[in-house]
Amino acid sequence: MGEPLQDMHMPDGVGPGSLNANKLFLGNFVHSKTREELEYLHSAGVFVDTTGVIVAIEPECDLAKAREHVFPRLGWESEHVQVVACKPGQFFFPGFIDTHIHASQYPNAGIFGKSTLLDWLNTYTFPLEASLSDLNKARRVYTACVRRTLSHGTTTSAYYATIDVAATNLLADICLALGQRAFIGRVCMDHADLCPSYYRDESPAASLAAARASIAHIRTIDPDFSLISPILTPRFAPSCTSDSLRGLAALHAETDLPIQTHISENLPEIDLVRSLFPGSSSYAAVYDDHGLLTPRTVLAHAVHLSDEEADLVARRGAKVSHCPASNSALTSGTARVRRLWERGVEVGLGTDVSGGYSPSVLEAARQASLVSRHVAMGLAEGKNRETAKLTAEEVLFLATRGGARVLGLDDAVGGFEVGKQWDAQLVGLAVVDDMGETETHDGKGGDDAGNVDIFGWETWEERIAKWLFNGDDRNTKMVWVRGRLVHSRQ
Amino acid sequence: MGEPLQDMHMPDGVGPGSLNANKLFLGNFVHSKTREELEYLHSAGVFVDTTGVIVAIEPECDLAKAREHVFPRLGWESEHVQVVACKPGQFFFPGFIDTHIHASQYPNAGIFGKSTLLDWLNTYTFPLEASLSDLNKARRVYTACVRRTLSHGTTTSAYYATIDVAATNLLADICLALGQRAFIGRVCMDHADLCPSYYRDESPAASLAAARASIAHIRTIDPDFSLISPILTPRFAPSCTSDSLRGLAALHAETDLPIQTHISENLPEIDLVRSLFPGSSSYAAVYDDHGLLTPRTVLAHAVHLSDEEADLVARRGAKVSHCPASNSALTSGTARVRRLWERGVEVGLGTDVSGGYSPSVLEAARQASLVSRHVAMGLAEGKNRETAKLTAEEVLFLATRGGARVLGLDDAVGGFEVGKQWDAQLVGLAVVDDMGETETHDGKGGDDAGNVDIFGWETWEERIAKWLFNGDDRNTKMVWVRGRLVHSRQ
Repeated sequence: MGEPLQDMHMPDGVGPGSLNANKLFLGNFVHSKTREELEYLHSAGVFVDTTGVIVAIEPECDLAKAREHVFPRLGWESEHVQVVACKPGQFFFPGFIDTHIHASQYPNAGIFGKSTLLDWLNTYTFPLEASLSDLNKARRVYTACVRRTLSHGTTTSAYYATIDVAATNLLADICLALGQRAFIGRVCMDHADLCPSYYRDESPAASLAAARASIAHIRTIDPDFSLISPILTPRFAPSCTSDSLRGLAALHAETDLPIQTHISENLPEIDLVRSLFPGSSSYAAVYDDHGLLTPRTVLAHAVHLSDEEADLVARRGAKVSHCPASNSALTSGTARVRRLWERGVEVGLGTDVSGGYSPSVLEAARQASLVSRHVAMGLAEGKNRETAKLTAEEVLFLATRGGARVLGLDDAVGGFEVGKQWDAQLVGLAVVDDMGETETHDGKGGDDAGNVDIFGWETWEERIAKWLFNGDDRNTKMVWVRGRLVHSRQ
Repeated sequence: MGEPLQDMHMPDGVGPGSLNANKLFLGNFVHSKTREELEYLHSAGVFVDTTGVIVAIEPECDLAKAREHVFPRLGWESEHVQVVACKPGQFFFPGFIDTHIHASQYPNAGIFGKSTLLDWLNTYTFPLEASLSDLNKARRVYTACVRRTLSHGTTTSAYYATIDVAATNLLADICLALGQRAFIGRVCMDHADLCPSYYRDESPAASLAAARASIAHIRTIDPDFSLISPILTPRFAPSCTSDSLRGLAALHAETDLPIQTHISENLPEIDLVRSLFPGSSSYAAVYDDHGLLTPRTVLAHAVHLSDEEADLVARRGAKVSHCPASNSALTSGTARVRRLWERGVEVGLGTDVSGGYSPSVLEAARQASLVSRHVAMGLAEGKNRETAKLTAEEVLFLATRGGARVLGLDDAVGGFEVGKQWDAQLVGLAVVDDMGETETHDGKGGDDAGNVDIFGWETWEERIAKWLFNGDDRNTKMVWVRGRLVHSRQ
């Protein structure tokens, strides 16, 4: 554990993330107040009950005040409360939400050559995904992926698995065991012309039956879908027949389960969709015409949406997962987040591993900032150019509350409010001592302090900017989902 | 130290980087063969003498063969040779070369808001640089910067310091003490209208005298400039008078010292140069007209050079430092590396801290790859669009041999050849075990293994791509400059 905890009280046998203890978090809390603004709560206390729900937030709170005033009010017995306090300079931040990640592609992170979407799928992606029908391989890959994303502070992931039901179910089991909130998508792809013969569903009926089988499994391990939920996953329009798209829409109508797919990632893909679905007026219309454009639909990429398509997406209440690292790496284009917001579309961030090279949502936020500057550079001088740029506050909103809205979790996670669940990370930055050497906040040197060097004169806003641009998993000291400690640095 | 060494023989009191021992490096060596191609030497041996120079490279070499055949030929006594052997999967790679970094701006890494060049200078940069006339502060900042860049595998840096001579000299002292090869630039800026009153040289004469004072200091600590060299540093055309530019050109003619400056970073800056130097036909012509465009000149950015300017730069043999992270962060533009290469201009990479947010050349290489894709996306479909993209091999060339050429060090460093100096890093990637857990190559788990997960089926080319896109300082296990061990992970 990188940072020993101050004032931690742990009854025998109860770890710092045990579900059966009430918890008090003390110190600095930073979260999005609005899209434009972070709120900084200092010397505050957040009280989390045994079910992982925030039941009180007290400004100007220390342990003495909590014991004297708050525990009695909550009916908590002081000696059984676990207390986790920040060191000076550390802060609690909402857990990150990855609205688009292919767990099955994790081993290919960073491998894409000079490919673009359609050749990338055939060269790198389909062979790897198909190979995960070997459950030993799937276990290895999925465990590595879930552990890594937890270490990067990802408390919720919307996963694409593969077409294999058993391997998809294994991913659900692993997320439940490791404690990550997750949407598990068994991938539907049944178009005989567009999917490789070695990796496709045999028919629309087979595709739907497999989707149902995976839903049934998840219902056995998490009956209320309270931590692990199925998500209907037509891969993207070109890989699906109209029949399977309609079948999934019917399944959505029956179950109200969320839907995830891809849209308008690159130009040849859009041409392909146009030729495959001549009866629909646009890519977005393909999904709409098949009943898949709903308030519970997550559309990854949306790079090249026309204004009409963006308006259609907004009218249907569908959401967008912005995947900046992937879009740059695969030369797909530059998605215009500001324009989507202005048209009323909710946006979150996706790492899109392995189109995106990194499983870190912090890296995705960093890339969202940089890509927004490339959007700006593509525009003529003037107001639009200036406003296209996203601020540090805005990309961190995308990474937390934005993602929660995209996944329909805005009542549950994404910020620190009473009634929300404690999905959070403890962030610590390195301190430069008087001699120019780096140490951690508790005075220990060493390699685990991370790359963010704090000199001591920085404002809180500047610390957050430094974390955004140079932070990595080393700065994420602890991670909790629904009150359970699911990761800590050793 | 993250990775214990196999077969390391260390006589009492002699560390693995001691200058007074001959050294044998065994295992995998990866370096640029050409701009397009990496060369992979496996099971090889590289023999480095007590002066840090590579004296032999043997394919298919192990310790027994070295002892039997090579040591006798070299006249080395076996028992006094230090042996450093890679673990399986580890490899030696040339040290990175940062052709443009402002050590004085290191504390601002990641802090730039929505600014662009000219307001960024006044808001963030000049106040910080001016404050480093406090030598205690300068020592703290420069030590942190040099330690960090060494930890990222940077064996050579071309630094901008500040206008303060004492602080600039301190940076030179720190680089020498910590063992980093460095060019130390005392910043010249004397234009009364363009530089803030609190941070500028009083006159061209004062500017030149200060430059000479810093050169004189470096001559006392490294008389042959063999590790630490001065570099003449007119900040950029708008901050210098014609008199000081001409004075520096004369000083170059007198000393043959290298020159570094900025060029054509963003559009308002170019307009400003046009208005300040109406007698010159272009930004590049301003430097040329003042005698500063030479084979020893390093021009940072070169984002918006016209074809005529690029040709002029090529004719003069001047070099370009490409700073992709900075250019994206400050919304400066997208530099076209392929075009510069096609016109005969040598290019290296610059982190450009703190216009660039990261002191890592590996991050600069990653950004060079991504920015080249943004260049491609700005072009019409066709051959140019495809060729604009830089491969992993090409950006790693930029980070090593390209940088060496830019700084006039191509005979000394940048690759592994007999006669070159041993400026190198040992790179290790993490291994995913059968259960999906990460461990280091020596079987130890823990947080220091880094973010690059190797599953075991990857080709060497794929391992390098994974390192490029997800690697960080944790993968750089050891760093040597001129045979001296200057960094190792604890």
